[in-house]
Amino acid sequence: MTRTMEDIQSAFISGEIKTQHLETVLFTDVYASDPAHVADACDAAARIRCVALEASTGVSMPLIKASRIDNSTRTADGRILAGIEGKIGACLMPMGVAGPILIHGQYVDGMVHIPLATNEAALVAGVQRGAKAITMAGGLTTLVHYDGMSRAPMIEAPDILSARRFIDMILTDPELIGRLRPFVYDPFVRLERIEPYQLGTKVFLRMTFKTGDAMGMNGVTKASADITRALLQELPGWKLVTISSNLCTDKKNAHINVLNGRGKSVQTEVFLPDELLAKVFKPGVNGRSVEKTVFHKCYLGSALSGTISGFNVNAANAIAAFFAATGQDMAHVVSSSSCFVQADAVEGGLHFMVSLPCMELATIGGGTLFGTAREALSLIGCSGFGTSVDDNTHVMRLAEIAAAAVTALDLNTACAQAAGYEMADSHVRLARGES
Amino acid sequence: MTRTMEDIQSAFISGEIKTQHLETVLFTDVYASDPAHVADACDAAARIRCVALEASTGVSMPLIKASRIDNSTRTADGRILAGIEGKIGACLMPMGVAGPILIHGQYVDGMVHIPLATNEAALVAGVQRGAKAITMAGGLTTLVHYDGMSRAPMIEAPDILSARRFIDMILTDPELIGRLRPFVYDPFVRLERIEPYQLGTKVFLRMTFKTGDAMGMNGVTKASADITRALLQELPGWKLVTISSNLCTDKKNAHINVLNGRGKSVQTEVFLPDELLAKVFKPGVNGRSVEKTVFHKCYLGSALSGTISGFNVNAANAIAAFFAATGQDMAHVVSSSSCFVQADAVEGGLHFMVSLPCMELATIGGGTLFGTAREALSLIGCSGFGTSVDDNTHVMRLAEIAAAAVTALDLNTACAQAAGYEMADSHVRLARGES
Amino acid sequence: MTRTMEDIQSAFISGEIKTQHLETVLFTDVYASDPAHVADACDAAARIRCVALEASTGVSMPLIKASRIDNSTRTADGRILAGIEGKIGACLMPMGVAGPILIHGQYVDGMVHIPLATNEAALVAGVQRGAKAITMAGGLTTLVHYDGMSRAPMIEAPDILSARRFIDMILTDPELIGRLRPFVYDPFVRLERIEPYQLGTKVFLRMTFKTGDAMGMNGVTKASADITRALLQELPGWKLVTISSNLCTDKKNAHINVLNGRGKSVQTEVFLPDELLAKVFKPGVNGRSVEKTVFHKCYLGSALSGTISGFNVNAANAIAAFFAATGQDMAHVVSSSSCFVQADAVEGGLHFMVSLPCMELATIGGGTLFGTAREALSLIGCSGFGTSVDDNTHVMRLAEIAAAAVTALDLNTACAQAAGYEMADSHVRLARGES
Amino acid sequence: MTRTMEDIQSAFISGEIKTQHLETVLFTDVYASDPAHVADACDAAARIRCVALEASTGVSMPLIKASRIDNSTRTADGRILAGIEGKIGACLMPMGVAGPILIHGQYVDGMVHIPLATNEAALVAGVQRGAKAITMAGGLTTLVHYDGMSRAPMIEAPDILSARRFIDMILTDPELIGRLRPFVYDPFVRLERIEPYQLGTKVFLRMTFKTGDAMGMNGVTKASADITRALLQELPGWKLVTISSNLCTDKKNAHINVLNGRGKSVQTEVFLPDELLAKVFKPGVNGRSVEKTVFHKCYLGSALSGTISGFNVNAANAIAAFFAATGQDMAHVVSSSSCFVQADAVEGGLHFMVSLPCMELATIGGGTLFGTAREALSLIGCSGFGTSVDDNTHVMRLAEIAAAAVTALDLNTACAQAAGYEMADSHVRLARGES
Repeated sequence: MTRTMEDIQSAFISGEIKTQHLETVLFTDVYASDPAHVADACDAAARIRCVALEASTGVSMPLIKASRIDNSTRTADGRILAGIEGKIGACLMPMGVAGPILIHGQYVDGMVHIPLATNEAALVAGVQRGAKAITMAGGLTTLVHYDGMSRAPMIEAPDILSARRFIDMILTDPELIGRLRPFVYDPFVRLERIEPYQLGTKVFLRMTFKTGDAMGMNGVTKASADITRALLQELPGWKLVTISSNLCTDKKNAHINVLNGRGKSVQTEVFLPDELLAKVFKPGVNGRSVEKTVFHKCYLGSALSGTISGFNVNAANAIAAFFAATGQDMAHVVSSSSCFVQADAVEGGLHFMVSLPCMELATIGGGTLFGTAREALSLIGCSGFGTSVDDNTHVMRLAEIAAAAVTALDLNTACAQAAGYEMADSHVRLARGES
Repeated sequence: MTRTMEDIQSAFISGEIKTQHLETVLFTDVYASDPAHVADACDAAARIRCVALEASTGVSMPLIKASRIDNSTRTADGRILAGIEGKIGACLMPMGVAGPILIHGQYVDGMVHIPLATNEAALVAGVQRGAKAITMAGGLTTLVHYDGMSRAPMIEAPDILSARRFIDMILTDPELIGRLRPFVYDPFVRLERIEPYQLGTKVFLRMTFKTGDAMGMNGVTKASADITRALLQELPGWKLVTISSNLCTDKKNAHINVLNGRGKSVQTEVFLPDELLAKVFKPGVNGRSVEKTVFHKCYLGSALSGTISGFNVNAANAIAAFFAATGQDMAHVVSSSSCFVQADAVEGGLHFMVSLPCMELATIGGGTLFGTAREALSLIGCSGFGTSVDDNTHVMRLAEIAAAAVTALDLNTACAQAAGYEMADSHVRLARGES
Repeated sequence: MTRTMEDIQSAFISGEIKTQHLETVLFTDVYASDPAHVADACDAAARIRCVALEASTGVSMPLIKASRIDNSTRTADGRILAGIEGKIGACLMPMGVAGPILIHGQYVDGMVHIPLATNEAALVAGVQRGAKAITMAGGLTTLVHYDGMSRAPMIEAPDILSARRFIDMILTDPELIGRLRPFVYDPFVRLERIEPYQLGTKVFLRMTFKTGDAMGMNGVTKASADITRALLQELPGWKLVTISSNLCTDKKNAHINVLNGRGKSVQTEVFLPDELLAKVFKPGVNGRSVEKTVFHKCYLGSALSGTISGFNVNAANAIAAFFAATGQDMAHVVSSSSCFVQADAVEGGLHFMVSLPCMELATIGGGTLFGTAREALSLIGCSGFGTSVDDNTHVMRLAEIAAAAVTALDLNTACAQAAGYEMADSHVRLARGES
Repeated sequence: MTRTMEDIQSAFISGEIKTQHLETVLFTDVYASDPAHVADACDAAARIRCVALEASTGVSMPLIKASRIDNSTRTADGRILAGIEGKIGACLMPMGVAGPILIHGQYVDGMVHIPLATNEAALVAGVQRGAKAITMAGGLTTLVHYDGMSRAPMIEAPDILSARRFIDMILTDPELIGRLRPFVYDPFVRLERIEPYQLGTKVFLRMTFKTGDAMGMNGVTKASADITRALLQELPGWKLVTISSNLCTDKKNAHINVLNGRGKSVQTEVFLPDELLAKVFKPGVNGRSVEKTVFHKCYLGSALSGTISGFNVNAANAIAAFFAATGQDMAHVVSSSSCFVQADAVEGGLHFMVSLPCMELATIGGGTLFGTAREALSLIGCSGFGTSVDDNTHVMRLAEIAAAAVTALDLNTACAQAAGYEMADSHVRLARGES
């Protein structure tokens, strides 16, 4: 006996069907397991959850209920996955576009529009103005010089000498990486390097992998667990402390990401003549005034604030909006927005530079392959993924464009502050006035 | 002569109409300035921008073009604002719901569903499992004990002695705050405190304000600029260095936010019996095993990583998903995810605690008053805003629920890691397999 | 029966007399408890320990054995204290003098010689050259604007709500400080402020005291223990976690000391004309070249290094040498050397500023009241101590001179590096060549 | 015409003879350039400076004037160096001895006395008690696993792409190190590794060297300058920014030293049965109570304080006293006291571990080769130096003993605090009462 949509809705509200089974039940019963209707089953499940929530809370959610977002898949054993668990629909965030901005990079050379999803007024306009200045100045040079995703299991030796012997083996065995690679079954995850650290008997193995166009955390977590399990096989008396020791470091600010890199490390630079700065921004803005603003705000102020990677104007604004638009993991804003900006007054103008040591990015996985994120990625020529772990041109291009967004916004805000009260005024003029 | 939609589209594509005028032109010409059609004009502008982008790039964006998101307003002088600039539509992010979770707070006492917008599989399920354990254990106690939004202008004295005399006045004049309040014109922004810091001739004035249910950055930026302008009037020979010195600290990790607070500071706690842990999570998970996991991962590992506020398991995941669902400023994930988790093994179980010193939140302004965010806020009883700067019950409730989401997820992930390889496996089982 | 010196030496070597009783036994037996011979008993004890060490190790230590250092005292119950335990004599460290330097401070106005004890060549010469430039430029302005010694016990509440209620009482009771002061029995220690912090059920009470001319750690430790004991009396169900929670923060780098202050906070400034810089240092050294050197080294480089208070050139060199010469607690070099230097290029020259937020200093206690340290303190007019807790002019003067030493050395080294390879060369020319 | 001592003293007081020439003039004129009287000339110079100071200030300095410390040398061109400039004598600091402590290391295996120079009461007693517990428990295992001294010049490329090309060469040229080694002329300094970092056009070259038994800063500064000069020869359009970029990092707290190492990295461990802890320290002290104390104080409290390497009880106390006694550079206390302590409660006792990632130490150079420091080094079997850059057994042994001192003191203080108010009491009982 197969149940109807109404049966299932009732059974869900009564608690008879659990939330994690809803998609599969609907697919099987209502859609007769027709592969063409996986997305419909997921939509139906989301709607039923909304109805149940509305019933139990008395709150109506028409927009969420009406939203559709399809990133459903079907597992080998017939279960239906809706992308995330307990899905009730989609959240909608305003998306705008800034630019185009002229970029001279390794993976992008030309004019690019920058999609930005944000609720904050003035942000898109800020990137827009920065992009305009950069483009008028001849464009932004970008450079991605690091690519690697890390996970750091912690294991415990019986004593400090055993810990060290093992680390010495890690550091000196030229065949170790090759020997461990076969323990990783995912062809899009390849072990590149293990950086060992010791605190007493605790051994941290910061493993870095190539992950193609994927951001890679899931694959890397699995891979590092498998490698660790293999290593522990040969280490009697040792034990696993945690598969992730926070030395990775994922989604926490951590100086190790700045020094050792994580995700992509990117540099950008642009030279802007003083006249251009005065024209695009405001009279009084020039290389020297921007240099002083950046020193006092981004270094003197940041130093006093007790930061470890926040030596910038407002990199997180650009990162968050660009990440939301392109389907990135939003928790990665924490470390990805680590940023050092430099404003050097030079003969006749400003040499503006941005360093982003640890941006975690993807063009496959997470939210990247479907919906509006896929379109936003297409808009900037980054949609899709390579056919091997080494083929990562999509995400490298993405990294350069993300860095361009940060540079444009930080340039704009630095120049606005170099002109005095401008920042406060621009918020007042552009914002909806939040209270 | 009024132009048609087609005329305007052509004029925009040809560059005749600038992107920042598009909404107003459409409203005036196509909709005859009819107040009922503000949103339509914004929709039309977004669509035209999409068409233009599709034309210039050859990329089609059907989902973005079809998306609708209305947070438009009309200014006093007749201009139309679309919420953000250059709007092309909306980005859609999957939204799920976890819980309900039982919360015993000051502003919430009962079962609450937690809306979470994320692209990451396993996240909602993680909060779900944590919420289940917490609820079975009798619920989570939450406590908001700080509320204040800060901005820190930097001004420069002619010499260090003048700088100090001024700071001494700030520190000792009991009427200063009262004297400065009239310079703030926004009734929903009230100056509460000025913390002065000195580095040589540079004086940092970290000003903290009450902002009702608003997160408050815009109002506070304006207010601190006005106050600074007023102060400088009486300080001949001084100058403004920057209206925002990075000591605020907005959207950068900074220890001053941990110590002095920013936004809301929240504490949570729950006692979980060992049997419950073993049952909900896995055999072997108990107070002691979680305590050891949390120490080694969140303190020993975090300490080695060089963090200043990342002493937690994965707070940023919950913060980012909750912020996206409820229309918060996503760049605030950086500092709002500052988090210290404690897992104390106690007689018979686990005393689990979470401290979030600086969560920046709102129920008015930004993305909170419209669309799916408003519905998500309604779902948890946080939609709307108070009628005065002191009336902030909506956002205080929101802070307690945000902290509950973080606690549930960190409890879950800590317990998963306390059981060994669980974390890697849960990702493998739940994730779509990202590469 | 009283023993002779030889008897006692034999008994000590044989283990019959314990090291902690040696001084008292000698005083009683050899010197017949004659108050005039306390120091002699201590010297004898030191010599006997040396003899015993020489005997057991075969190493001869003629210089240590010949050294004399008298900071002995006699307790009320007749025991003899040698200042430190297990004393074998003195370590000798070369002491030089730099300057005089012209200082315009609150507690010092005139030319001051700076005593520096160090093993490092080039250090005294560096301070000397900096002092020369400063003096030629008209002198250094110094300003001490904070004075307070802190200790932070941690206590634990039964739950987070109780913790908060207690903290709220701390924050709001205007009579608390007055009510707690009587629990401090030392007239030279006065409670000034309690800053409470909460992490879950753990309550940190950062207590700050005035300690007159003393650095104050011992008195403050006792006082905070007594106060905490008194507080816990009224807090049934609470417990003491630790009398010192590392939030004090004593002898560890910690940003809280930078923000909240500890010991003395000092600012200095000097304006130096470009011609003077070129003349005293080297052609090419001017305001702009020093500004750039300081930015790149002390901010860009320091930021990348992951520091929290090391935004200076080499403050620790001056602090360590000045502390050694004047009998300070050498472990305080860690936090006392926290330093932010600024070099602003101004019209015609350099505006050089140094901020030292947390210097821990004393003119009474520790090594300050005797021996060469007392003479060094006398040399700079800082020997002695006030007659009440408020009378701290000796130590405030000392703070200004310490800051002057740091400023002179950092100015010198910044200028040396502004001239290129100078630093390496000066080491080569001045150093003995260490390897 | 040769001048007498009195002539020279008058000429010095009148300003006719400069302080930097005093030793040479005395040697030449009074001692007829007799090589046997170099030290006498230096002593005479110190005395004359004292006399001059006494005359000009009216302060008498009998102890300083009477002190003798001989680390004089004669340069090839006949000048006399007194070790430091402007020498007036010596500072005397009380020196005690703790232990012996049983150490099982690579370079030391047996009982060792620990010399400690300090002005602080209770410090030697603390090390003593810790050493006693450790020795009774069977001794301390020590392990030195890193040895390298670093200096990081910063150079600037004309653009970011050139910067990267150069860095890529550094990272990939297997012959680079070999090619650069000849530019280092000091046979006791050997280049081992260059770690390049990029921020925009700025290239940081963190160079690490072997320096035998020397701490090595002077030799390494010279060497890195020479190497940088050589590199710049082949880099037209580049320039030197600073020979030392603060990424070294010398004498500032910096997380890069924790992660990458500097000087020596050392681990220690000891297992202590609960009964022993209760007996040596106090009833109630056991593995679990120490574990909890260390977690709450050294991790929870330190995390809140905003530290980057201060996860210990009071490592700096032991480091400072041991460094003073053995003639180390006292400014190195800042980074050398970086320390992570672990206290794991294990079956029946406590597993106590200490990690010191970056101790800067020497047995040659600075203050190590003469005076009381040399004797203290002899006492512990560390006096002297190897005959080649690879022969560093003296300093490696020293590192193990330094780590033992830290472990003993931190164990003691952790146990004292684990027993409640003990710390406050021990200060009260042992200290002279500082105010």
